[in-house]
Amino acid sequence: MPSDSAAQTAVANPPTADVGAAKTVVSVDAMGGDNGPAAVVAGLKSFLQKRTDAHVLLHGPQTTLDPLIAQHGIASRVTVSDAPDVVAMSDKPSHVMRHGKSTSMWSSIEAVREGRASVCVSCGNTGALMAVSMIRLRKAEGVNRPAIACLWPSRNPAGFNVMLDAGADIRADQDDLLTYALMGASYARNGLDIARPRVGLLNVGTEEHKGRAELKVAHELIGEAAARGDFEYIGFVEGGDLPSDRVDVIVTDGFTGNVALKTGEGTATLISDLLKSALYSTVMSKIGGMFAGSALQGLRKRIDPRRVNGGVFLGLNGTVVKSHGSADATGIAAALDLSYQLGKSGFSDKLAARVASAAAIAQDTSNQDTDPS
Amino acid sequence: MPSDSAAQTAVANPPTADVGAAKTVVSVDAMGGDNGPAAVVAGLKSFLQKRTDAHVLLHGPQTTLDPLIAQHGIASRVTVSDAPDVVAMSDKPSHVMRHGKSTSMWSSIEAVREGRASVCVSCGNTGALMAVSMIRLRKAEGVNRPAIACLWPSRNPAGFNVMLDAGADIRADQDDLLTYALMGASYARNGLDIARPRVGLLNVGTEEHKGRAELKVAHELIGEAAARGDFEYIGFVEGGDLPSDRVDVIVTDGFTGNVALKTGEGTATLISDLLKSALYSTVMSKIGGMFAGSALQGLRKRIDPRRVNGGVFLGLNGTVVKSHGSADATGIAAALDLSYQLGKSGFSDKLAARVASAAAIAQDTSNQDTDPS
Repeated sequence: MPSDSAAQTAVANPPTADVGAAKTVVSVDAMGGDNGPAAVVAGLKSFLQKRTDAHVLLHGPQTTLDPLIAQHGIASRVTVSDAPDVVAMSDKPSHVMRHGKSTSMWSSIEAVREGRASVCVSCGNTGALMAVSMIRLRKAEGVNRPAIACLWPSRNPAGFNVMLDAGADIRADQDDLLTYALMGASYARNGLDIARPRVGLLNVGTEEHKGRAELKVAHELIGEAAARGDFEYIGFVEGGDLPSDRVDVIVTDGFTGNVALKTGEGTATLISDLLKSALYSTVMSKIGGMFAGSALQGLRKRIDPRRVNGGVFLGLNGTVVKSHGSADATGIAAALDLSYQLGKSGFSDKLAARVASAAAIAQDTSNQDTDPS
Repeated sequence: MPSDSAAQTAVANPPTADVGAAKTVVSVDAMGGDNGPAAVVAGLKSFLQKRTDAHVLLHGPQTTLDPLIAQHGIASRVTVSDAPDVVAMSDKPSHVMRHGKSTSMWSSIEAVREGRASVCVSCGNTGALMAVSMIRLRKAEGVNRPAIACLWPSRNPAGFNVMLDAGADIRADQDDLLTYALMGASYARNGLDIARPRVGLLNVGTEEHKGRAELKVAHELIGEAAARGDFEYIGFVEGGDLPSDRVDVIVTDGFTGNVALKTGEGTATLISDLLKSALYSTVMSKIGGMFAGSALQGLRKRIDPRRVNGGVFLGLNGTVVKSHGSADATGIAAALDLSYQLGKSGFSDKLAARVASAAAIAQDTSNQDTDPS
């Protein structure tokens, strides 16, 4: 079984050819977000200030993008790739797959496929982004359903847990859930620096007899795969464990994961707003707010959904990061930074090696089972 | 179609015989909670102080309960019903259904079945409580799967939204989801005083083509039932809408609902703890915390999961309230108060009339459809 580091050695020449090996190139879809290309370019600027060895390929209508880039003074760090059309939030994925070749989304994925960038970021329509990523980048060996992994603010030392699938597919059978466990563990190892991640399977209770039939089978499969996947399987976890320090990777289907993600974000936003109103409610509380200001600022930052912006598509031949459609410049900068880290670490190749290796072992086991000798 | 008030007239003599019509009698399972009968009796005391016309039937081992009741000086308001056995959290529902007749849980439900109390409260094993409630109280006419409805802190004027099913059953087909919509609307009308509740169906997006097959059918069914159910159907909603003011009643299956509920609670608890640490982090923030103390206290109270303790079983011939297993005296008092309000309003009979009426209309429609004349 190749370790993640062995897989890294195998891709010692990451595909960043056109700007030299020293730079990490990020391919960015400028269009399709709720706040338009201005928010994307504003986010780009703060990202480029932080990551001085990054270069950006920016996709969208050249006539729209050139003035924005000039305005922010980042022309030397950004190469515009002209793409006249935009994928709308209401476009069906099937329509974009057939007619989307001239869109900024398609162009930004194409740059990863052709090795001109190591990772792609888009704020656009999630379904279309996944569909185009699937047909252009193709699923990695051993993966039936790719998944979206998101980071969840938690009590863990890293500050985050990984949850997947956050909404790539509304279904997941037992084999998909096993693949999610392997992919999620690899992401936690490479993205959060957790050597041996603890993986849990989301259910409505922690007792073994609870839950749907496919969860009981997945429970067995993931337990058996823990050794070769180099993770610890802690069994079933519940919704309350998502922000806990019991677990690093939470595995679930994309319907449940999407509802949980949006519920958590909605709850955090409600409480954050209520906190703001509470501090403006009386003269005394306003004075208190001034004294406690910086401490409360730290808290607001910690629970700010924009700070963990960026769902990562796992299970494709290439890394694609989906930013929130409603992301502002702060949110977009966070998604760009996550993309940069993943691109720089060669994560996509490490993950592919891990899943392919697990699939090969499963295949061997299956062949042995039916071997008449 | 009988209105809720017509249904109320039909049950002008609620079953509170043994203590006189003026009192609302609540049947309480003293055992099975994580904090034992001491927490239940402490919660009882604060509840009885608030609700002076309430009387309690308390079920559990007499030798354990008598000293606790005497200690709190509430002997005149509480009648102990001796039940020697306890349902453990690890007991399978099927086991309790066969062998649980001498448990405090069974005894507390039996008091509702026999009309000695109008509502029952338990902190015990949810699966067992639902199973025993089902076999003793029976499903109401027109209900296939009963559901657990919970209250969700929201931006609505009432301060809460209703979500169901919060975990009675891990499955729900399209007809069940329709029944949940009818039951949830009736609960919102009677429990939250919302004359014409807005009902939404939980999905991973608000577009009509999204989601699982049964959700698309349920979307049609609930839309058609809005007029006769006297609610407004707003279509699909997402996890982020749970705490919003877009909707009053959120309908989903018990798997998704349970994960969402625990995710929301876990997120609120995390933020509440982080807020506390933030205010103790520096001298300045401690001073700020003192000034802002009462405003922040109000916020903490508003998001305190204990304040909305109590899932209500809907769709049975009688009302059963499930308190959190980990509820302390404050949480138990909240569950008791909710039970009292529902018992006093005759909610269970109103709900049954509403669902039976809808089922009868559906039956009529179905007969007309196949009528050869």
